[in-house]
Amino acid sequence: MLKLHGFAVSNYYNMVKLALLEKEIPFEEVLFFGGQSPQALKVSPRGKVPVLETEHGFLSETNLILEYIEQTHPDNKPLLPADAFAQAKVRELAKEIELYIELPARACYPEAFFGAKVDPVIKDKAKTELLAGVETLKRNGTFSPYVAGNQMTIADMKFCFSLDLASAVGKKVFELDLLEDFPQAQTLLNHFKQNPNVQKIEADKDAQMPAFLDMVRSGKR
Amino acid sequence: MLKLHGFAVSNYYNMVKLALLEKEIPFEEVLFFGGQSPQALKVSPRGKVPVLETEHGFLSETNLILEYIEQTHPDNKPLLPADAFAQAKVRELAKEIELYIELPARACYPEAFFGAKVDPVIKDKAKTELLAGVETLKRNGTFSPYVAGNQMTIADMKFCFSLDLASAVGKKVFELDLLEDFPQAQTLLNHFKQNPNVQKIEADKDAQMPAFLDMVRSGKR
Repeated sequence: MLKLHGFAVSNYYNMVKLALLEKEIPFEEVLFFGGQSPQALKVSPRGKVPVLETEHGFLSETNLILEYIEQTHPDNKPLLPADAFAQAKVRELAKEIELYIELPARACYPEAFFGAKVDPVIKDKAKTELLAGVETLKRNGTFSPYVAGNQMTIADMKFCFSLDLASAVGKKVFELDLLEDFPQAQTLLNHFKQNPNVQKIEADKDAQMPAFLDMVRSGKR
Repeated sequence: MLKLHGFAVSNYYNMVKLALLEKEIPFEEVLFFGGQSPQALKVSPRGKVPVLETEHGFLSETNLILEYIEQTHPDNKPLLPADAFAQAKVRELAKEIELYIELPARACYPEAFFGAKVDPVIKDKAKTELLAGVETLKRNGTFSPYVAGNQMTIADMKFCFSLDLASAVGKKVFELDLLEDFPQAQTLLNHFKQNPNVQKIEADKDAQMPAFLDMVRSGKR
């Protein structure tokens, strides 16, 4: 059985978890926080979460884990369209969300969520990038109702667990409502809040959060 | 015919160009510098280079352009192995090179190549990430002789045009030889320097460089 290594507070972990749940693929969760210990680096070359453990070995990096799951489970609910160009457009949107929304928002997570201060130089760069990233998604997403069309795809896995945090970063760090002029994104986020698999993932996250915050504050992570 | 929009100095552009040349796929080059003008944003949602123009429309973001080329030209020289897990490992290496080597090095390009100063806060962050990225590649690459095995793959397209610039950033900005303890990477870079398609790409780059530098220095880019 596939094993998903990681932890319920990680939004990248939850992207893969949602794909597995939506596709109804059995999997086991293994608690793993990543990091730079020799043991962690044997599981993930950069010490990152999530890791998918397959019968052939470990895989790191969310986007290709999602691709691998898709490719090896063709009879489960597809999260990619059949046509090559349509697939490429899904991957384009997923990539844009990751590079231009998730990554700049992530640079501000310590200040937004963990009571730390982020250097103003880093914050200024992140703000500029984040605003441009949201404009990119506005320009390229179809939201009909999903990010890339009428089918839920791997771009929605990215959207669902990046846009909520990016939006929180906007409010907490920059006093900006990133979704103010982006009602189609707000509608899709609300839609996912009604999804039973997302609800399960959020419940697991809430359950783990106090212990995770203790770990962060104590400097163990 | 496929059209590749971009410019010969862009290393992302050259990753796609090398794939097209290695696969012997006919294509036309269209000079495009990206940017935030309304015209550029119609071609690329984030105004980025390269863009592949297909009969179905434009595609941005190098990794999925490489995937699309691969998928739509199954009879040309393959740049992905056949097996799903082996493909995932190639994508993992490509992603690690992009996120953990290319992106931190890129944050320092203005200082390394264009006579500008990068804020020390940004440089410190980039240095830490870059060193960890090189260790990641050392840990995960096979270099036998290619990044992911005995077959040239899309991970090599990333390697070939990211490691040379990252190495230059190491020397120019941090006075560090990133490849000092990484002879297998140096050997592969030297191998690519003998590749006729890489030589053509480098010649095109050298030919464009003076005009590009003028453009950067005049603030037009």
